[in-house]
Amino acid sequence: MANKYLEEITISFKTELEKLQTNFNTNIPKNNPLLKKIVSHILSSGGKKIRPIITMLIAKLIASEKKIADPVLHLATAVELIHTATLLHDDVVDNSKQRRNKLSANFVWGNKPSILVGDYIFSQSFIFMVLVNDLNILKILANTSAEIANSEVMQLSMLHRTNITDTEYLQLIQGKTANLFAAACKCSAITLNASAELEKAADKFGLNLGILFQLCDDYKDYFSSQEKLGKKPGNDFFEGKITLPLLLFFKKAQDNDQQVIQDMLKNKKQSSEDFTKITQILQKYETQSLTIKFIKKQMDKTLKQLDIFPSSTYKNQLRNVVLSLLD
Amino acid sequence: MANKYLEEITISFKTELEKLQTNFNTNIPKNNPLLKKIVSHILSSGGKKIRPIITMLIAKLIASEKKIADPVLHLATAVELIHTATLLHDDVVDNSKQRRNKLSANFVWGNKPSILVGDYIFSQSFIFMVLVNDLNILKILANTSAEIANSEVMQLSMLHRTNITDTEYLQLIQGKTANLFAAACKCSAITLNASAELEKAADKFGLNLGILFQLCDDYKDYFSSQEKLGKKPGNDFFEGKITLPLLLFFKKAQDNDQQVIQDMLKNKKQSSEDFTKITQILQKYETQSLTIKFIKKQMDKTLKQLDIFPSSTYKNQLRNVVLSLLD
Repeated sequence: MANKYLEEITISFKTELEKLQTNFNTNIPKNNPLLKKIVSHILSSGGKKIRPIITMLIAKLIASEKKIADPVLHLATAVELIHTATLLHDDVVDNSKQRRNKLSANFVWGNKPSILVGDYIFSQSFIFMVLVNDLNILKILANTSAEIANSEVMQLSMLHRTNITDTEYLQLIQGKTANLFAAACKCSAITLNASAELEKAADKFGLNLGILFQLCDDYKDYFSSQEKLGKKPGNDFFEGKITLPLLLFFKKAQDNDQQVIQDMLKNKKQSSEDFTKITQILQKYETQSLTIKFIKKQMDKTLKQLDIFPSSTYKNQLRNVVLSLLD
Repeated sequence: MANKYLEEITISFKTELEKLQTNFNTNIPKNNPLLKKIVSHILSSGGKKIRPIITMLIAKLIASEKKIADPVLHLATAVELIHTATLLHDDVVDNSKQRRNKLSANFVWGNKPSILVGDYIFSQSFIFMVLVNDLNILKILANTSAEIANSEVMQLSMLHRTNITDTEYLQLIQGKTANLFAAACKCSAITLNASAELEKAADKFGLNLGILFQLCDDYKDYFSSQEKLGKKPGNDFFEGKITLPLLLFFKKAQDNDQQVIQDMLKNKKQSSEDFTKITQILQKYETQSLTIKFIKKQMDKTLKQLDIFPSSTYKNQLRNVVLSLLD
């Protein structure tokens, strides 16, 4: 049900999302077929476009009477492109084979074009940032991009380390995911000259939504089906990433079960049998419902950030975006 | 001798170059040892810093009485960081083992951290661009970065293709190398409110210098020693890149010798023996002196772009930078 809402919201921004895609497409040089092919592959696979959608919803929340103006559209494009560039490089780093129910670019064309096309898309994100025409916004987005890369490097050093603390985990997902959501919401408010109070509220909403988004992502990687996920589940486990379900498991499990999973994670080559085994052990401690409980708390916290905004269709839509994440 | 001049210029900008390094260092997060280690490795290997040096020399050429102001310094930092990020990703793409007489980052830490640290440095370049505080400059540099990535992708599709035309080659080296030199010089002029005429002259000088720089790079990869090059020569050949020496060779060589080299290049695994053989065939057609002759012409063209500027110490230093490139 919740995803029906997300679909409705996407339809309500159809014109803007198409414009966003067209704006980006016109920038792609005509004389570089390889670049064009890879970019088309990524764009055609779509994705939920959740970042541009919340950027536009925050704009509407603050000035519901206004049409989505160019600065908001450029901001939404820049944010989506930062995210897309990150995906391309992440897939290389994680040796991913699938993305959004399609083969990943690195799997089809190899790592080299994926790295360079990622750089191209990242540069394009800066071109759109510049079009927003606001040095303050540029500063925020440049810092957010640096923070994403910093966190991705940090994530590499944390792989296979089973003693990750809650604080480390939270810091990591803020840096790699949530800060971009926060920046999108905050900058959207800035383009509309929102009051300092509303700008701060938008920022906090974005941050909490981003954390929620990553928690749900981590949940799905253990408990979702391949069909819903657009790729095989278990990636985090196979890469040695310690995420929310394992953190919750480690707090509750008996020593012998802890040991089994720790040994698996320290090993750098996990098998599919290991993943089956791990899900069975997680089941024993009701890790799935524990994770859902944890996520629901973050969901409530995120929704609470909207309290300051007056009631409107757009506030309802933002609530629905939040609720749709665990669908 | 020419490099003695470059050394002198570097010393004359010692304070500024140190400040540039300090500015960047203070941005590196304290709690990410892996990032810190890789960044230190790259920065300690130094490089010639030719891009920041010409950025500052152009500023001095236009306003010799002024100290290098913060916007010029930030611009110089941004340009050097764009270049550094590109190097990290290039080394991954080219499977390089060495860079600046040191092991390459990808060889020491693997491809994954190199990709992500490259992204981090690239984001940092944008942070410094924003500090320049000029939307026009940001636009130029964002477009230049996109053009670099676009050209690097194009270069991938051109590998092992022996029918590269002069126009294609020139377009490629402009995009991947010369445009950044042009942008550095042009933006430096912009920060000093130079006249449109001088801004254009700085731009053209930078573009020609950048082309010259790449031509010399291509020359050295065939005709320089490992000691001078900081890495083994022959990389372009091993990667299947068709560069200036081969383009000149193809214009002059007899059919049978052309065939030998074409067959080698189409083959995706070249041996060291192949490289020895190729240098012998190139010798037969005096390709080295042909290449030098071609480069000297570009050198003259580059120097000519300085005519418009009044005589000064800084003009002499810029001339010396140009002359030092073929040392």
